[in-house]
Order: sequence, then structure tokens, then C-alpha cells
Amino acid sequence: MLPDIQLSKPEIPIGLSKVGAKGIKKLVKVKRDKKRPIILISTFDVFINLPSTMKGANLSRNFEALDEVIERLTWKPVETVEDLNLRIVDELLKRHEYASVAEVNMEAEYILRKKAPKSGLMTQEVVKIFCEAKKNKRGKESVFVGVEVYGITACPCAQELIKASSVERLKKLGLKQEEISKVLDTVPLASHNQRGRAFIKIQSREDFRPRIEDLIEIAKSAMSNEMYEILKREDELMVVEKTHFNPRFVEDSVRVMAKNVVERFKDAPDDIIVFFRQINEESIHQHDVVAERIATIGELRNEVG
Amino acid sequence: MLPDIQLSKPEIPIGLSKVGAKGIKKLVKVKRDKKRPIILISTFDVFINLPSTMKGANLSRNFEALDEVIERLTWKPVETVEDLNLRIVDELLKRHEYASVAEVNMEAEYILRKKAPKSGLMTQEVVKIFCEAKKNKRGKESVFVGVEVYGITACPCAQELIKASSVERLKKLGLKQEEISKVLDTVPLASHNQRGRAFIKIQSREDFRPRIEDLIEIAKSAMSNEMYEILKREDELMVVEKTHFNPRFVEDSVRVMAKNVVERFKDAPDDIIVFFRQINEESIHQHDVVAERIATIGELRNEVG
Amino acid sequence: MLPDIQLSKPEIPIGLSKVGAKGIKKLVKVKRDKKRPIILISTFDVFINLPSTMKGANLSRNFEALDEVIERLTWKPVETVEDLNLRIVDELLKRHEYASVAEVNMEAEYILRKKAPKSGLMTQEVVKIFCEAKKNKRGKESVFVGVEVYGITACPCAQELIKASSVERLKKLGLKQEEISKVLDTVPLASHNQRGRAFIKIQSREDFRPRIEDLIEIAKSAMSNEMYEILKREDELMVVEKTHFNPRFVEDSVRVMAKNVVERFKDAPDDIIVFFRQINEESIHQHDVVAERIATIGELRNEVG
Amino acid sequence: MLPDIQLSKPEIPIGLSKVGAKGIKKLVKVKRDKKRPIILISTFDVFINLPSTMKGANLSRNFEALDEVIERLTWKPVETVEDLNLRIVDELLKRHEYASVAEVNMEAEYILRKKAPKSGLMTQEVVKIFCEAKKNKRGKESVFVGVEVYGITACPCAQELIKASSVERLKKLGLKQEEISKVLDTVPLASHNQRGRAFIKIQSREDFRPRIEDLIEIAKSAMSNEMYEILKREDELMVVEKTHFNPRFVEDSVRVMAKNVVERFKDAPDDIIVFFRQINEESIHQHDVVAERIATIGELRNEVG
Repeated sequence: MLPDIQLSKPEIPIGLSKVGAKGIKKLVKVKRDKKRPIILISTFDVFINLPSTMKGANLSRNFEALDEVIERLTWKPVETVEDLNLRIVDELLKRHEYASVAEVNMEAEYILRKKAPKSGLMTQEVVKIFCEAKKNKRGKESVFVGVEVYGITACPCAQELIKASSVERLKKLGLKQEEISKVLDTVPLASHNQRGRAFIKIQSREDFRPRIEDLIEIAKSAMSNEMYEILKREDELMVVEKTHFNPRFVEDSVRVMAKNVVERFKDAPDDIIVFFRQINEESIHQHDVVAERIATIGELRNEVG
Repeated sequence: MLPDIQLSKPEIPIGLSKVGAKGIKKLVKVKRDKKRPIILISTFDVFINLPSTMKGANLSRNFEALDEVIERLTWKPVETVEDLNLRIVDELLKRHEYASVAEVNMEAEYILRKKAPKSGLMTQEVVKIFCEAKKNKRGKESVFVGVEVYGITACPCAQELIKASSVERLKKLGLKQEEISKVLDTVPLASHNQRGRAFIKIQSREDFRPRIEDLIEIAKSAMSNEMYEILKREDELMVVEKTHFNPRFVEDSVRVMAKNVVERFKDAPDDIIVFFRQINEESIHQHDVVAERIATIGELRNEVG
Repeated sequence: MLPDIQLSKPEIPIGLSKVGAKGIKKLVKVKRDKKRPIILISTFDVFINLPSTMKGANLSRNFEALDEVIERLTWKPVETVEDLNLRIVDELLKRHEYASVAEVNMEAEYILRKKAPKSGLMTQEVVKIFCEAKKNKRGKESVFVGVEVYGITACPCAQELIKASSVERLKKLGLKQEEISKVLDTVPLASHNQRGRAFIKIQSREDFRPRIEDLIEIAKSAMSNEMYEILKREDELMVVEKTHFNPRFVEDSVRVMAKNVVERFKDAPDDIIVFFRQINEESIHQHDVVAERIATIGELRNEVG
Repeated sequence: MLPDIQLSKPEIPIGLSKVGAKGIKKLVKVKRDKKRPIILISTFDVFINLPSTMKGANLSRNFEALDEVIERLTWKPVETVEDLNLRIVDELLKRHEYASVAEVNMEAEYILRKKAPKSGLMTQEVVKIFCEAKKNKRGKESVFVGVEVYGITACPCAQELIKASSVERLKKLGLKQEEISKVLDTVPLASHNQRGRAFIKIQSREDFRPRIEDLIEIAKSAMSNEMYEILKREDELMVVEKTHFNPRFVEDSVRVMAKNVVERFKDAPDDIIVFFRQINEESIHQHDVVAERIATIGELRNEVG
């Protein structure tokens, strides 16, 4: 019989909020209607607690259990990422009989196919998907799903400055005020633009299961335009034009996401929690710019009016 | 007059929890008694909120202000990192008159000099230092300081398994039970060991200012041994021996930090919040192992007993 | 007709060694005998040259071509990674008629299933796979394939120091010299051990196509032991024991790989180029330790003797 | 006497191209005329070779030496980075008597102060500095210094497409051809723009020591405009305007750097080797775009004409 030191008493009787493993990579397949399953290269962090009354823990003996769960569950297609992660926390609680809470965080890269906007050429994009599931012994659970999407953002402020300065320049050319206004509304004016990342995380419950596809769409809507891996010249023109007729601050991006979540998820209960973040990798600075909002859908409904 | 689009009304009247800039690098000098100031290459994230009643924001106009503050404050030695960061949040609130909360997060690398344990050769180590300061218009402030330190951890469980297996092997060699016990207590037995990272973050208040040096010492105490950039053979022997006579799980590391915080900070008020984390980059796995605890010092005092 | 500025003359008539795109992520499927294809999340860098005599370049018009190639080739299983990458460079040369050289670098994560050493439990590991293909207009091609594998390395030097010090300790216990020798050969003695990464890159030609599986096996053989995501206690004992009876410097790891390449690839031509690297994330230091060798197989054959 | 296993014979008599340590962080101070020394947080990789005739190596015994060198040399200001790194390779060769080659690679972050372009406000930027030094026993040495600088690049192609499309739009407004041309030359037209990184590495010899400051200036000149951490509105207008009147492909950036190196370093010998790279983090794609050139200054002189 091999010894099991984890079962012995700790010298310092202090409980631990979380004990677990970080960075376990797995291939996960998620079912889709009438299509081949989605393949997600996923990274999992899994935790349980060790209560303060508990003197010892058989943790490393049970890590195998935890890994087995992921192994067994992740080699055939799962219904949803929520489903997968809830089954993992259930198994964790079953095997760690001394734990009162189990938690799993999953992060995955999802390679989407899509068409270039004008030429229609097939291309792709890489989107990040998140799921966090937490459950306690009494059955109380908390699940969040999320996405992070890259897009383009053009700055409204810089464009307005360019516009004001262009008015002066065009006056000197001899154009009339009325003509100038028309010209500057017609021509896509310069601004700084850059890679942005829109992030949404939202509570998922038995009475409300947001679709990942909807979250991706809402996140994309936050920015001045989408990104594409392939752009023919007619596509590139369209993307740059649309971007500059649709400038957005980080604040705008978060507000647009909030509004679109309210509109898309009309059936969502008022107490569903949602978190938004927009990060812009500003082309004029070495630093990034960020805006965030955390709220319940009820609060957002009140604010949007 | 240049236009200021940030002052205009947003189409979607939603408040933002945080708006700001991430990843601003600065050289910070911190004073020390009778020594040359410490040089910290620091990265700052700075945020303010935009209240839901606020229609517009003059954000980009004020980013300069924010940067100016950091510029002005970071080119001469500061008393403490708390002091620096509190002055930054004060300036943020002054300049963003519409904001009710300001927040700054600082992360820095601190290169410490120290002696090899046996030869006494001068060497160094790199330690991470953190400070988070948050303040609202009514003067309520919340400050946390933290450190992350690398060290070595040897696994107690694997060592116990090696011990049990060695008993069987030595029996076959013809040694007696009593002799075997002595031998196995005397010889540093193999285990897996690895780089660990001990992290502490603790509340810092006017009535309790923990010293960074104490936090570094407590974090180092969490692991089986310290790390060194230079080790002569006599040092290496000492480090490997000490490591294997002092094996530690991630759980142990957190518990040791908790106990040492209670002992070191006897004058700390009971409601001071403290967070511990130990991460081990397990040499036998591709994944990392982690333990965490968040508590008030009062709670820890009760548990430690 | 949209303008095509890439076709115009550059003001500065300087040729470019490489022009291209970095970091294009694709799902690649590679065929296997009687098994489901391997799924590789791959990242590609693709380049062509612009000769010094060339005044302009229609680069962005052709990027689409390049992306199309990857799109078309990467959504059905390919025979080998060499085959995939050679077809990409062929397409690049065809579409960039002014280029004389095309190059593609691919890096992928491959999730392998394997058994724990004693319990036989199924587990997995993540291995990196590389392929670099380069071809010029006259048909001269150069292809390299490579792998990087994580494993455990225990330090022979520290273990020898522990042994010498244990001799002294056991003498004081009253053991005889002969007994001490037996004991110290029997018991797995402590050393520092850590995550290591073994890397091999080898030329792949029509007359010599090394199998990726062989490279993975050789890379694993370089270190003191393999890593596993799941280890029951009996497995953990076996892994730690084997690791400590098989200590390796970074230099040893490279030498073992070189020897095993010579032995495994008996049919390889003498002028095949091969590169080895071992990096150890030393548990006693914050820095990593590294050894490298670049040679032809012929040179290694001479040296190994 | 402690044993020294590195001195024993290897089982496999294979020479190693490089053995060393990676990722050693040090504070380095570099002298400046009449100013306070520059502080560089530097990361060093240091290597020696082990010749194939050499059976064993006392490597870990000498790592201390290597570290001592860096310690001793890096705590007082050095004349130049070349000087520092050459002294390190000299020490390496002296202490590793069996080695025929020593090599050191240094990478550092340099925080520069500078003024915003219009308001004149003091701000800063972070620049990367590189130095590689290699020397063999017979005294042959090879030194390279380099810099990497962030900047903004606007795409000439997208801007030309916007221009062509704007011509059509303005025709519909009733403007005449001549007027349209004037307007479109006057107004800064939209394009995609993004963070770019310009990289130069150049040989440094006794007969030619390029100044780091010159390299930084040349790298900045490669892009459409510089970056700033602080920009008041008048600065932001100026930066965005200048960027859009100075659009640059990655190819252009490399060519401009090549031309400027030829012009700036008129005294450089023809056989000095120089390497250029421009990477743009394209705002319309998830992938980066890159151009490179490696050449001697003589070759570039011929091409520039």
C-alpha cells in the first residue's frame, strides 16, 4: 500500500478558497444542427475549495479523477459548453467529498468561416469563447459564457478634428460653406483606426441560455467594422469606407453592446448579470484604451429606456 | 477652436464602470533610508467611471492630464508606492469632474541584490510588486499592495512514495527496520520539484501600512526554498538539501503565508483583507497547480488559533 | 476600375528579401492510416521576395491568393505537413510571378493521447510541430520539419553533490563504506528537477522523409522522463524514480537526441542537416539553461563513431 | 571536496554549438555626455560552445563566473552596450578555457522622453535595444546592435481606393474634375492605419560604431508617423494629418530605412551587414504584415544609386 500524505493533518489549520490545476489543454467538440461539430482547442482551469474545518486533503489522488472527467467528456461532441462545464463541476463535487464548491473556467479558440463583404470570397476569423461554471454542494450554480472578438475601430474625435481642419483648408481653395459641408459628408475622412477587441460575458441559467452565436454577433456590432483575413481590393475599399462612416470610441462600443444585448435578449430575466469590455490597441499610442460596464439586464433596460 | 466631440451627448445613455488606458510604462524611483532609491520599471492601468446620468465624456482631452500626472510624479523618488498611486487617483478625480470613482493599478519588476546561501557571493533576484488604488468623490479609498516571488517547491507526496518504496528496497539489501528509518531520515530523498510563485496582496490603510520588504519575505517563506541566479557547488548542495527537507504542497505554501502574515502583522486591524496564491509549475505535468485563499486577518487569526 | 498602387514604381529601388504575412491561424487535418485524421491548430507565416530589379509589387492583390491557397488546402486532410507546405510555396510562386523565392513556416499544437506508465490510464500530452518550406523559381527546395516536446530533467551534478554529502551523513550514523555504497545506489537521491523542452528540426527531402512520430519519440528520449497530465500514485512513484535514476544535463539531452537520430535514421543521406536544442526551466534559478547543436547527419555519424 | 561531475567524460562524444543560460535580467546603466546615465532593464542570453573533441565540460561550475561578470559589469555605468557585451564575451572565453567561441545577446527596454509635436508637452516612448556579441579564441569578433521602435503606418493602397471612390461621389455632387482633384489633394483621406514596428540591426566594428540614437531616428523615419503617449487635441490632429499625407507599405518602410542608413552612415565600410524589418499590426486583419531586407551597406549603395 502506497502512503497517502494528503490525508494527514496540516500543521496550519487554514481553509483554502481554491485548490486546483491551471492550463489543461483539451480538444472539445460541440454539436451543431445538421453540421459537422465545432472543434475547440480549449484550456481548462479546475478548482475545488478546502473548507477551514478540514484538516487534510487528498488532492493529488483526486486530480486524476478530475482529469479523467475531462478526458471522458471531451472526446465526443457535447451539446453546449455550459453542459460540458456543468458536468465537470458535478464530477468534481462527487469525487472531492470534502469540498463544498467546485469551479471550472474554460477558454477556447473557435475558427469561424465567413465571406468577404463584397467579393464573397470564403475566409475565416478566430474568436475566443469562454465559459465559467461554479457549483456548491447544495446545488446552487452560477454559469457565465462569453466571447471576445477582434474588429476595427476608428476614432470619432480625431475624425472631427480632421473635419474642422479640412473646412479651413477648403475655404482657402475657394469653396463655399454649403459646398464644403456636402464634400465633407461625402468623402471618408481620415482618423486613427486600430484593432479593437470586444468582450461580453453573460450569465447563463436554466431559464436563460444565451446562444454563443448571438454573443459573437453582438460583439462584432460593437466596433466600426469586422475584420477579415482575405480582402480583395473591392472588399478593402468597402471595409475602410464603412469603418470611417461608423467611428466609435471604446465607450461607444460598450454602449452599443449593452443596447444590443437588451434588444436581442428580450426574454432574459431582469437579474441576469452581464459584463462588457472594449479594448482598443490605439494606433497613435503605445498603450491600449479600455471601457467596461458590469450590470444586470434590468439595469440596462432602465438606462436604455 | 478645435471641436470636442467627447462633450456631445451619447446616443445610448448607458453609464460605464471603467474607462481608461492600459499598459503605460514608466520608470518609478522609490526612496529608501540612506540608500540609493529603488528603480522600478512599472506598468500602469488608469481608469475612471462615467456615471449613467452623464450624457457625454471629455475623455481623450483628459487622458493627457492623466499622463501628465504620471510623468510629473514618476521622475523623482516617491515615498511609497501607495503614496504614488493615491496621488494619481486624486489627480484623476480632480481633472475628471464628472467621474465619481478613479482607479490605478501598478505592476513593477524589482531587481533585488542578495547573497548566495553558503559562498556568500552577491547575486540577485527579480520580484514583482503590485499596487492597486481606488478612490471615490466622497473620499473613500481602497488600496492594496502585493508581491509575487519565485521559489522552489518539492512535493511532499512524491517524496513519501519514494520513501515507502525505498523501505522495501533497503529491506532486500538486508538492512534492519531501525537502520532503514535512520537512513531515510538522513538522506535527502528524491521528489519532483519545480519553480513556484508565491503571491500576496494585502489591504494598505492609513492605520496599517504593510512594508513591501515584509511581504517579499513572507512570500519567500512559503516555498521549499529560495531561488538564486548564482550558485557555487556548495550553495547548490545546500539549496537542494534544504528544499528536500522542507517539501511543500501549494496548499502548504498558502497556509504558511497566512500564518506568517498573522504573526508578522500583529498590529493589523481585524478587518484588513488579504489574498494569497501559490502556483507551482509542476515538473511532472504540463499544467500548473494552484491554491488560493482570500480572508480578513481576523478570520485567519481565528483559524490559526 | 479600382486603382492598383502596388503596380507603381517605388521611389527607392531596393529589393526585399521577404514580404509576407505572419500569424495566420488555420485548422489543418493530417491523414493517418486507419485512424481519424489528426487535427492541428496551426499558425502560418508566408513570404515571397521582391527582387532588387523590381520597381513595384502587387502584393496586397496577391495576399488573397495566398490566403485562398491555405483555405482550399487546409479544409481537407493532407498527406503530410511537408506536402501541405510545399503546395503552399508552389502556389505562392505561381501567383507572384515577379518573385523568385517563396517561403512558409508552420507551427502547430498536436494533442496526443497516451497511457500513464503504471496504471495504464488514458491521458494526453501537447506537442509542438513545425514545418518550414522554401522554394525558388528554378525548383530548388528546402524543407525542414521539427517537434518540441516537454519532459522532466533531473540534474546529475546536484545529485552527485547530494550523494557525496550523504556519504558523510551515513558514516556518522555508523554505516560501513560498502553498505553506504549499496544504500546510495538503491535509494533515489534528491536533485533539482524541472520542466525541460527538447527540440529537433531536421531536413526533409524527396530521398528522406523523417516521420514526425519518430521525431517526437527521439525528443522524449532526450530527457530524464516523459510528462503526463494524469498520474495515479503508483505512476507518480514510477516517474519520480525513473527521473532520478536517469539524470540529464541539457548537454546530455542534446547528445542523446543526436545519437538517437543517427541510430533511427540509418538510411538518411550524410548531408541531411539537423538541429537540436534542449531548454531546462531550472527549478533552482529564475533563468533557463540551454544547449544546442547544428550538424549534418554525416558529421554526427563521425562523432558518435 | 565536492565532486565535479561536469569534468567526467560524456558517454556520447558529440560537440555542442552552444551551451548557456537564457533570460538573465539585469539593470544596466549606460553613460551619456553631461546627462544622467540611461537605465536599461536588460535581459541577457549567454553561451559558449563545447568542441566535439572535448569529452566533458565543467559548465555549471562556470555559470557562476558568467553571472559574476554580468554582476560586476552591470552595476556601474558602461560606455556603450557594445563595450559591455564584448567584455562579457572576453570573460566567458577566459573562464571557459575549453571553449573556442562565446556569445552574448542582450535585449533592453529604453524609456525615452520626448515632446508632443504641437503642444510641446513632455511625454515618453519605450524603445527596444539589442546587442549581440560573439568572439572566438583567435580574437575574431562579430558585434551587432539594433533597435525596434513603434510607430503608425497608414496604407497607401486603401487610401488610393478611397480616393478613386471619392472622385465618383464628388462627381455626383456636381463638382468639376479640376475641383475634385484639388479637394482630394487637400483633405486627409481615410485609410486603414495601425501600430507598426520598425527594426534595424547593424554590424558594429572598431572601424564603425553606429550610434543607437541614429538607429532610433532612422527606425522612426520608416513609418507614417511617430507615436506619443500624450496627445492634446492639436497634437492628435497633427499626427493623424501627417500620417495620412505620408502613407507607407511595409515595403516602403524597409526601403526608407535602407536609404536613410546609406545616407546617415556615409563613412561605413561597404562590407558592414545590416538587417531591416517592418511589421504592421494591420487594423483590417487579425494577421500581421511584414517586410525584411538583409544586405551589406555596399549592396544598398549600389541599389539606391
